[in-house]
Amino acid sequence: EIVALLAGDGPLRGERVLITAGPTREAIDPVRFIGNRSSGRMGFAVAAAAARAGAKVVLVAGPCSLATPGGVERVDVESAREMHEAVMQRAGDCDIFIATAAVADYRVDRVPEQKIKKSDQPVALTLVPNPDILQAVAGLPRAPFTVGFAAETERLAEYAEAKRARKGLDMIAANLVGGGRDTGFDSADNALEVFWAGGHRSLPRAPKIQLAEALVALIAERRHGNDQTTDSRPASG
Amino acid sequence: EIVALLAGDGPLRGERVLITAGPTREAIDPVRFIGNRSSGRMGFAVAAAAARAGAKVVLVAGPCSLATPGGVERVDVESAREMHEAVMQRAGDCDIFIATAAVADYRVDRVPEQKIKKSDQPVALTLVPNPDILQAVAGLPRAPFTVGFAAETERLAEYAEAKRARKGLDMIAANLVGGGRDTGFDSADNALEVFWAGGHRSLPRAPKIQLAEALVALIAERRHGNDQTTDSRPASG
Repeated sequence: EIVALLAGDGPLRGERVLITAGPTREAIDPVRFIGNRSSGRMGFAVAAAAARAGAKVVLVAGPCSLATPGGVERVDVESAREMHEAVMQRAGDCDIFIATAAVADYRVDRVPEQKIKKSDQPVALTLVPNPDILQAVAGLPRAPFTVGFAAETERLAEYAEAKRARKGLDMIAANLVGGGRDTGFDSADNALEVFWAGGHRSLPRAPKIQLAEALVALIAERRHGNDQTTDSRPASG
Repeated sequence: EIVALLAGDGPLRGERVLITAGPTREAIDPVRFIGNRSSGRMGFAVAAAAARAGAKVVLVAGPCSLATPGGVERVDVESAREMHEAVMQRAGDCDIFIATAAVADYRVDRVPEQKIKKSDQPVALTLVPNPDILQAVAGLPRAPFTVGFAAETERLAEYAEAKRARKGLDMIAANLVGGGRDTGFDSADNALEVFWAGGHRSLPRAPKIQLAEALVALIAERRHGNDQTTDSRPASG
């Protein structure tokens, strides 16, 4: 089995996997934008792990300065709407969709063509909701096995499982961010709580590369479980 | 003279130079922020050039993933208010202040402790002005020789010279950004129009490293000119 893995004959062999990663940026004007603290590292690690597991991987990446993993096809985007378009063009042709990107929930409603000049008066910005990429993919007539991510600052299990159920996801991987924790967005380490309908697994704190391996193994296990083709079940069972 | 330059006995020998660089980030909530497209490269190049010119350089840097130039003391900050505090602590003890940072003009007035949950309703953000670091330094009783930067999307000379005069700067270096131009924020090349009271010089498009050398030479020339100690004037003149 180790030989098979090394040969690229891994648990996702032949699967077409679409992954989003990184932050998105929403323009306020030509020089300012709304961003978020996602480094993209978790998503790039998942893409690398999926490729090593034998999958054909397309990675739709927001602005982040990370090298493309070997064997992965990369599509660069900036805003949530650009990411939505890039994903929807490809979602019909994939078996597994893993949405690790920290997509901006909101964009600025009107973006001026010129830089907003500074004044000593307050400025009002109106933010309007962006398209929900995860929900759009999970709601497709022939949806791929869809895995979401949730970054929460509080009440992790409650918010994550509610998000999974509301969006009709097959699986959600959640982690705590902010508040000086040494995991999550800017960290090399992370820890995940993974939820699916009727089940849960904790992936304890580890470097993102290792954690991505564990998550990809769990996705392969659950995906095969859903397909009634669980390879790990003893043949005599 | 070349030997003197190579020995670090350059045109800014003995000068204490304080430089700001990079963007600043203004938190919207624990995961979202307002940023801008400054890469920090121009400021880091100016810091390197000033150190090579013999100056003792302190670089106050917003979030950017660049290596600290050799011989430069670096102070990392995130928000405009943090940069303001770091600069004002040091501005009284410097001879030259070069403000290349793209400091956020505005911050969000109230930042919640928890992540703002997504809804399908618009969100109103109120932005309030940040302290003006450049004006604060230029207005000190014993102000250093103060050099500002201006990134404009239109009417470059007019906006830049107005900013220089309004803030009481000794010099301002301006460049056009946005609109698909291949100079400015995300580019390796740049071009600058430099203005001072009664004078102007164009520094044509060049790699930022070279452009920083030219700017530092011009600052040394103008600073010495103001001090009535122009070394380049022939002794017999």
